[in-house]
Amino acid sequence: MNRQNSAETNNDEIQQQQQQQQQQQCDNKKIRHRLKSKILLLIPVVLLAVSSIIALSIGQITTASTVILGAAALGMAWAVLQFLLIARIPVRSEGVSDSTGLVSGSNDEATTRRLVEIYTAIYEGAESFLRAEYTICAWFILVFSVVIFVLISWGTDWDFARGLFTSLSFILGACTSILSGYLGMKVAVYSNVRTTVSAQQSGWKLCFNTAFRAGAVMGFALCGLGIFMLYVTMLAFRIHYPLPEQWIYLTECLTGYGLGGSSIAMFGRVGGGIYTKAADDDPRNPATIADNVGDNVGDVAGMGSDLFGSFAEATCAALVLGSSIGRSGGWDAMVFPVTVSAVGIFVCLLCSFIATDIKPVKEEKDVESALKIQLISTTILMIPAVYLAAEIFLPAEFSLQKTVGTGVLTLQPWQACMCVVMGAVGGLIIGLITEYYTSHSYAPVRELADSCKTGAATNMIYGIALGYKSAIIPVLVLALVVYGSFTMCDMYGVALAAIGFLSNLATGLTIDVYGPVCDNAGGIAEMAELEPYVREKTDALDAAGNTTAAIGKGFAIGSAALVSLALFGAFVTRIRIASDNALFAEGVNMLQPLTFAFLIIGGMIPFAFAAMTMKSVGVAAMEMVMEVQRQFDEKPHLLDANPTERPDYDACIAISTKASLKEMVPPGAMVIFTPLLTGIFFGVYAVSGLLVGSLIASVQLAISMSNSGGAWDNAKKYIEKASPDSELKGKGSDIHKAAVVGDTVGDPFKDTSGPALNIVMKLMAVLSLVFADTFYATNGGAGVFQL
Amino acid sequence: MNRQNSAETNNDEIQQQQQQQQQQQCDNKKIRHRLKSKILLLIPVVLLAVSSIIALSIGQITTASTVILGAAALGMAWAVLQFLLIARIPVRSEGVSDSTGLVSGSNDEATTRRLVEIYTAIYEGAESFLRAEYTICAWFILVFSVVIFVLISWGTDWDFARGLFTSLSFILGACTSILSGYLGMKVAVYSNVRTTVSAQQSGWKLCFNTAFRAGAVMGFALCGLGIFMLYVTMLAFRIHYPLPEQWIYLTECLTGYGLGGSSIAMFGRVGGGIYTKAADDDPRNPATIADNVGDNVGDVAGMGSDLFGSFAEATCAALVLGSSIGRSGGWDAMVFPVTVSAVGIFVCLLCSFIATDIKPVKEEKDVESALKIQLISTTILMIPAVYLAAEIFLPAEFSLQKTVGTGVLTLQPWQACMCVVMGAVGGLIIGLITEYYTSHSYAPVRELADSCKTGAATNMIYGIALGYKSAIIPVLVLALVVYGSFTMCDMYGVALAAIGFLSNLATGLTIDVYGPVCDNAGGIAEMAELEPYVREKTDALDAAGNTTAAIGKGFAIGSAALVSLALFGAFVTRIRIASDNALFAEGVNMLQPLTFAFLIIGGMIPFAFAAMTMKSVGVAAMEMVMEVQRQFDEKPHLLDANPTERPDYDACIAISTKASLKEMVPPGAMVIFTPLLTGIFFGVYAVSGLLVGSLIASVQLAISMSNSGGAWDNAKKYIEKASPDSELKGKGSDIHKAAVVGDTVGDPFKDTSGPALNIVMKLMAVLSLVFADTFYATNGGAGVFQL
Repeated sequence: MNRQNSAETNNDEIQQQQQQQQQQQCDNKKIRHRLKSKILLLIPVVLLAVSSIIALSIGQITTASTVILGAAALGMAWAVLQFLLIARIPVRSEGVSDSTGLVSGSNDEATTRRLVEIYTAIYEGAESFLRAEYTICAWFILVFSVVIFVLISWGTDWDFARGLFTSLSFILGACTSILSGYLGMKVAVYSNVRTTVSAQQSGWKLCFNTAFRAGAVMGFALCGLGIFMLYVTMLAFRIHYPLPEQWIYLTECLTGYGLGGSSIAMFGRVGGGIYTKAADDDPRNPATIADNVGDNVGDVAGMGSDLFGSFAEATCAALVLGSSIGRSGGWDAMVFPVTVSAVGIFVCLLCSFIATDIKPVKEEKDVESALKIQLISTTILMIPAVYLAAEIFLPAEFSLQKTVGTGVLTLQPWQACMCVVMGAVGGLIIGLITEYYTSHSYAPVRELADSCKTGAATNMIYGIALGYKSAIIPVLVLALVVYGSFTMCDMYGVALAAIGFLSNLATGLTIDVYGPVCDNAGGIAEMAELEPYVREKTDALDAAGNTTAAIGKGFAIGSAALVSLALFGAFVTRIRIASDNALFAEGVNMLQPLTFAFLIIGGMIPFAFAAMTMKSVGVAAMEMVMEVQRQFDEKPHLLDANPTERPDYDACIAISTKASLKEMVPPGAMVIFTPLLTGIFFGVYAVSGLLVGSLIASVQLAISMSNSGGAWDNAKKYIEKASPDSELKGKGSDIHKAAVVGDTVGDPFKDTSGPALNIVMKLMAVLSLVFADTFYATNGGAGVFQL
Repeated sequence: MNRQNSAETNNDEIQQQQQQQQQQQCDNKKIRHRLKSKILLLIPVVLLAVSSIIALSIGQITTASTVILGAAALGMAWAVLQFLLIARIPVRSEGVSDSTGLVSGSNDEATTRRLVEIYTAIYEGAESFLRAEYTICAWFILVFSVVIFVLISWGTDWDFARGLFTSLSFILGACTSILSGYLGMKVAVYSNVRTTVSAQQSGWKLCFNTAFRAGAVMGFALCGLGIFMLYVTMLAFRIHYPLPEQWIYLTECLTGYGLGGSSIAMFGRVGGGIYTKAADDDPRNPATIADNVGDNVGDVAGMGSDLFGSFAEATCAALVLGSSIGRSGGWDAMVFPVTVSAVGIFVCLLCSFIATDIKPVKEEKDVESALKIQLISTTILMIPAVYLAAEIFLPAEFSLQKTVGTGVLTLQPWQACMCVVMGAVGGLIIGLITEYYTSHSYAPVRELADSCKTGAATNMIYGIALGYKSAIIPVLVLALVVYGSFTMCDMYGVALAAIGFLSNLATGLTIDVYGPVCDNAGGIAEMAELEPYVREKTDALDAAGNTTAAIGKGFAIGSAALVSLALFGAFVTRIRIASDNALFAEGVNMLQPLTFAFLIIGGMIPFAFAAMTMKSVGVAAMEMVMEVQRQFDEKPHLLDANPTERPDYDACIAISTKASLKEMVPPGAMVIFTPLLTGIFFGVYAVSGLLVGSLIASVQLAISMSNSGGAWDNAKKYIEKASPDSELKGKGSDIHKAAVVGDTVGDPFKDTSGPALNIVMKLMAVLSLVFADTFYATNGGAGVFQL
């Protein structure tokens, strides 16, 4: 005993020394980190200045250009402003000015140190993961940009300009996607701890606003940056393709931008998704820092890249399909899809005042409605805004080349506007249905919670059935939007509807990031052993965020389906033009042996992808469980009430990082190589079957997996909220255990496989579009095997 | 205590009296039942005689007719022979002749009485369920035959003959399906108890042969009856349509036969599937008789109807698509698809000797290989047999109207043969893959069993991933078969491939029925408290059956996909003819707003269907659990080692019957009404999208659900077989509990939703084909809404 005691005293001394060293390191890092953040802010300003000079110098500043670049600048500036507001909340709460509402001196030296320590650990974990992930991505970008350059040049009879431009816009898209993800992660980590600190204060407003602003930084920065990069690239390409007849090539080269955004999104989503689900969340558990890191790399960085990809692809698809508009309507008419996104930034910005200032959050119950109002108000306000934009930027009549059959379609502005509006409203409906099926305020999740009474198996059956059932109305809405927009403005209408779905992207992203920020804030509060009310507050904020995030998911899935369809339409158009109407002139016949065979194969891809990613999560989680077990075995006091030992967080982070990066490659490779090899070996008929088959199956699977997962999660939370005397028995009961099984199964459903399926369908379609010329060049579209 | 004792004595007396009464009732019933069985045997003989007279009297007996009717007669006669062989095994084993191999006097009076009692209870439960189910079906047949008559007559400009013939063949198909199911159930129940008795004897041969013969009765009776009814109907219709030019109408009216078979199959599968999964299997559990009844109504009657439906639809699709062959090749060439099925009966019959006589089962390990050899040998033997049939019955060259585009295809017999062979071999490959993924002899299920170590959630994730993954190779094989047969003989080739998949139907059915018979035999042994070795023996027989049943499932799913595609092709052909090539002449364009919108909706149908059926199982099972709980509460001694109280089996049977019948209607209605309403309101473009979308999603979902379920089942069995000291800990451990959750979730996957999805795709396609003229008649195929 004595020896042990002295050993412990020794340990204590060593620990103290270590802690002091760590503190110093932390402080240094903090200063460096702050400096870095400040420098980062300069990026948008410099970029904007440079581009304005370019644009002005070649005399391409039209009305649309002004609006688009203005919106981009405003978005980025707004993000900077929000960031500065967050930065005013100091982690060390002593000596804070009264205006922030912080009661000074609430945290003592030790707590502050602990907060900084945790925050730094999360930051370093996230950064090291992202660095590792982006290193792999960088290699991918390098290799694939060469592949693009060679294949496109070859496919266009050695038109090196096309190859180069496509390759360049691919690199640009990929880099912007990486930048979006990285930026998001940085802001989220920076804001997490500040949300924790502000949750220590009385009232809900500051705490909510901090998390909300963190979301807004990401939302507006990403939208601004995305539009800005895309538009500047367009302006640059226009120097080479000045004539409206050439704009079809311009837009085609631009599709590389969508491909870049989307392929990074794939890796981000899958890698981040596997990472975040491999970890557990007991504060004394060594994997807990990894869990918090996971939220930042999966739910923030991965999701940011994902939505950036959606935006880029939807815009590219609309531009390709609408490139013929330029001939009758001029540049401003052709860039209308970008204008819509620009208008979206204005609308989202205006509406964000409702949450932060006009109707600020005063008590717990305000939180959910504040977020919901954001989504609904932006959607409603988009309607007149888009109408105005259409009236201003589109000529009274303009003509559009049809995707199927010959002849042109004469369109009026209101028709284009209608397509966008259908998309926006359809997205809202799908979002609300998603909420209905996944929130525990409504019957489905409550029934699911009830089913836990008869055990985990019933919970599983009911949960899977719930997911399948939840696809019915969204699919009907999607079908309606497809039919309506397709009939009204051909495939261009479908692309516009997809842009409509994404028109409130800034708000959607704000809410999506808000959730993990609150979640992380709670995790930090618990690890820093703050008063329990802090965690309760952040939990309440997080719960509201979960519900509204479900609505956001509806927009994402709906838009993905429409984007893929639009991209498929663009692919068909491209092949028609390349083959001089020899192929696909009368549409795409399903009753063609090769097409039908690949329809079935395409339907299989999402299932194979889901199988791979789900199992990856399982493998990564198992490795993590074994590491945690090893640490518990080595350090038996880890789980004591007042643990004398510290878990080895780094080992867990390393395992998550390694496992997720290793596991993200096979599904990613499958999605990228399948359309590429199909096109080259089996030709364009096979590709069309593949794309449509995968689209049909992906939509259903993505919706049902996301919703099953969300419902299981909330059923568990609903049971946890129940008192032990109630019918559901509450936390720790057998009913709760059954619910936990559902929640665990649901995690890869809703955070890895489900959302990644969105990317599957889009990525396959955009790849086919980018390489359309290459496919056609291979034996006139018949592929190597010439079947 | 005293009072209680006397009460118990009283109870005993009453029970004895009741038992005596029951015995007498049983004996009476047994006699009546035997008589009924004998009478039933007369049906095929009488039918055959009548039809031969009809056929001969109108001089239509050609070579093909001889072969077809001969095969039908042989199949039915063979079934009768097998039945008589089973009937030689007496339930009361005293006084048995030595030739049966039974040791006389092995069961005493009490055991025999108990056996008869249980057997009667199962029989009555099954009969009462089927009577209730078929009453609903009868109403459906009545109403729907009128609907068919009216809609078809209207759609063909009041050609009442077409309406009447279609309606009649619908009734005939439905009645044959009912007869198949009923017959199968009767034979299975009759054989269950005899398998139990023969399992009491030493050696494996008699016991295996009894169960195998029970399967053969069903297999050959169903094939014989199916072919017979179909062919006689054709001959009868030929009186009205004597000219080869009119045979297109003849075959179209015949599609009613497929629709009838398939719609009853739908109710049988869903109703039976819900019934069988609502029940539990502890012998002291009141639901145990219901469980045994479930095996007979779900796995035997339901499955019989299902495969009869597949056969009927595949044949009808091939006949419609190949009706143009009659013009150049005559009647015998046109009925080639039926001839292939007839040849299948001969081949299956020959091969069945391998299992029963040439290479009989001598020990446990022979069982699985005996069954597997059946499937493989029939498939191999089919190749030369089909080649011969093609050479004999098809002219050296014949022409076929193309489904897409104009012109005819000139075909040679070997090409038709190749399509059939591709189907047969493809089916075998898919079957073997299915076995690989669901048998615990291979890696996937063992890995799944391993995953149970980390709990039920990992088991769920791995199981679902396994199911999704298991679809990859089957889908690729299917795609290859589609491509190959489609390229070789147009859509007619796809239909022939489907028939190839089903060519060893008699063997497949034999094995499919063999499984539940063994399962039931084991259940009876346990309830009658026979020596444990009896149950062990039947369990071993059942386990082997499970594996081979998985192979059979591969054939069923593959054929369903091809049948639906062929039926879709027939639908398109039909619309082309009706519209005089105004519609679908160049195929079916995917890029048509309505078609694409319905492609997505079609993809949703199987998910919605799966959701409905899975939840129905959940609801029915919950009701059953509550009833069982009620009985346990009322009769606390039910679960004693030597129970003094008897459970109320009838209440459980009533609950299962009521719940399953109530729950089978909504999914059935959805599948039937969706294509009907789509066609009438939205027109033929919508229908084509709907059919293809549902086909693509159904295939994946059916394969993955069936295989996930099968794998969970076998992973549980694998863990149960492990010793408590091994890594998997064996029965009762936490690992086993995790596996039980998987098995419970898997039950509705593999026995209700999965197999019923096969019917979903076929039924929707055959409905559209039957009502093609009606759809076209509604505003020229544009539907009421004329979108």
